[in-house]
Amino acid sequence: MMISETIRTQAHPALLVTADAATAAYRRAVDGYSREKLRSIEMEGADGTPTMFVDVLVEDAIIAAARSIGVNVLSEERGWVDVGSSVTLVVDPVDGSANAAAGVPLSCFSAAVVEDGEFSEALTSWLHTDERWWASRGYSPYRTSGCTGVAEAAVSMLRPHRRNWDAWTRVAERASRVRILSCSTIDAAFVATGAVDAFVDAGSDTHRLMDIAAAVVLVGASGGVVLDARDRPIEFDIDLTRRWSGIVAATEELGEELRGLITA
Amino acid sequence: MMISETIRTQAHPALLVTADAATAAYRRAVDGYSREKLRSIEMEGADGTPTMFVDVLVEDAIIAAARSIGVNVLSEERGWVDVGSSVTLVVDPVDGSANAAAGVPLSCFSAAVVEDGEFSEALTSWLHTDERWWASRGYSPYRTSGCTGVAEAAVSMLRPHRRNWDAWTRVAERASRVRILSCSTIDAAFVATGAVDAFVDAGSDTHRLMDIAAAVVLVGASGGVVLDARDRPIEFDIDLTRRWSGIVAATEELGEELRGLITA
Repeated sequence: MMISETIRTQAHPALLVTADAATAAYRRAVDGYSREKLRSIEMEGADGTPTMFVDVLVEDAIIAAARSIGVNVLSEERGWVDVGSSVTLVVDPVDGSANAAAGVPLSCFSAAVVEDGEFSEALTSWLHTDERWWASRGYSPYRTSGCTGVAEAAVSMLRPHRRNWDAWTRVAERASRVRILSCSTIDAAFVATGAVDAFVDAGSDTHRLMDIAAAVVLVGASGGVVLDARDRPIEFDIDLTRRWSGIVAATEELGEELRGLITA
Repeated sequence: MMISETIRTQAHPALLVTADAATAAYRRAVDGYSREKLRSIEMEGADGTPTMFVDVLVEDAIIAAARSIGVNVLSEERGWVDVGSSVTLVVDPVDGSANAAAGVPLSCFSAAVVEDGEFSEALTSWLHTDERWWASRGYSPYRTSGCTGVAEAAVSMLRPHRRNWDAWTRVAERASRVRILSCSTIDAAFVATGAVDAFVDAGSDTHRLMDIAAAVVLVGASGGVVLDARDRPIEFDIDLTRRWSGIVAATEELGEELRGLITA
């Protein structure tokens, strides 16, 4: 069975309707508005960061779709939208907003399903092509690369910031190859499929839950790990002020070596 | 007129048939072979660097297409294929080979037409989607961002190497945003369209002519510049041992400021 067929028949309907809504809204946004408008700051999001117009357009479409199917949504801009369901979607409407708004075609819709407080499945959809990656906690169609050492690893990273320049440099110097794609959720999908060996926020504490929630399922079920550089549990929480430095790695050994470099 | 229609009707036929051949060969390669096979080293290229199996497959298809239409080809693996034409294509069959071989969908076919020793037009095609960017020396459908200062610029860079770590860091610290996409020719197309403000090899002298030849036309005709960090002329030459540190920028001012940072 093709993976796209697996996703269509096995994924939670809430993931499918919100992914469809996100793709359609993204296309309307990039076809209908200038780059200046797309990147204009529309509001301060529930997570305390500025929200671009493109984020608002796509998030509104996702929330409407989730409401139509009766599930709660936790999203970066509007926060916690509780309709009394036992199912919650943790959603990043447009991960890689800066890419999307500029015209760099690397941005994703990403969502994890939470049932009984646990992540049960996740879907990431590349908005430019509508390619999708999906897994549940018990089943993944993907396999990580199995890479166990940083010196052999192709590592994707968040761009360096002043506050974590030294940690960023330690990882970049040691890795066999470094990329900065500016889209955490596509990077995590690439770790799940084995296209890259790891993806890290090298200690800048930039990651919010929606940046790494899908990775917990996609990469965890594909043989890899998702750690936090400072060992904080990556768990469902409606408090959007929490931050992590996610380490998404093909294997436990690779994840731990990256953590050691970042916290050295 | 849609840009795709402009390209179909105005581009040199040699660009169109080779781009078509490259896309078809790339798809056969990624569908038909494992990642291990795609990245296996097949030969030492004419440019002195190791050539992956995926490069050979795509280049063979391009050379056959170019021969069918009777133009010369200068390509990284086979070198100079002279059929006695007044037209030469300077070709990168798979720019971003490491991406292509690993399964990161960022790699391009890129070619510049040389007539009477001058670059006259160029086409870059994203192999994953077949999206194409084309311009001639006298006409471009694109416009760069017009950005004039590094502090406001989103700058794409080649990954840092030990030999240019300090120059790389000076640019990364000063720029407003940094990306490493590991595909020079898509980065140059993004500079032409204004999606990113600049793309640089920060002094590592990694660029061969085929990595930046298309940029000379695409970005030059769109309002930007292509410089070399050490001021070497970027010109047609069948000597594939030559290297450059290309600076592809939205404006002359931005290009010169980047050159100053790289050579400081």
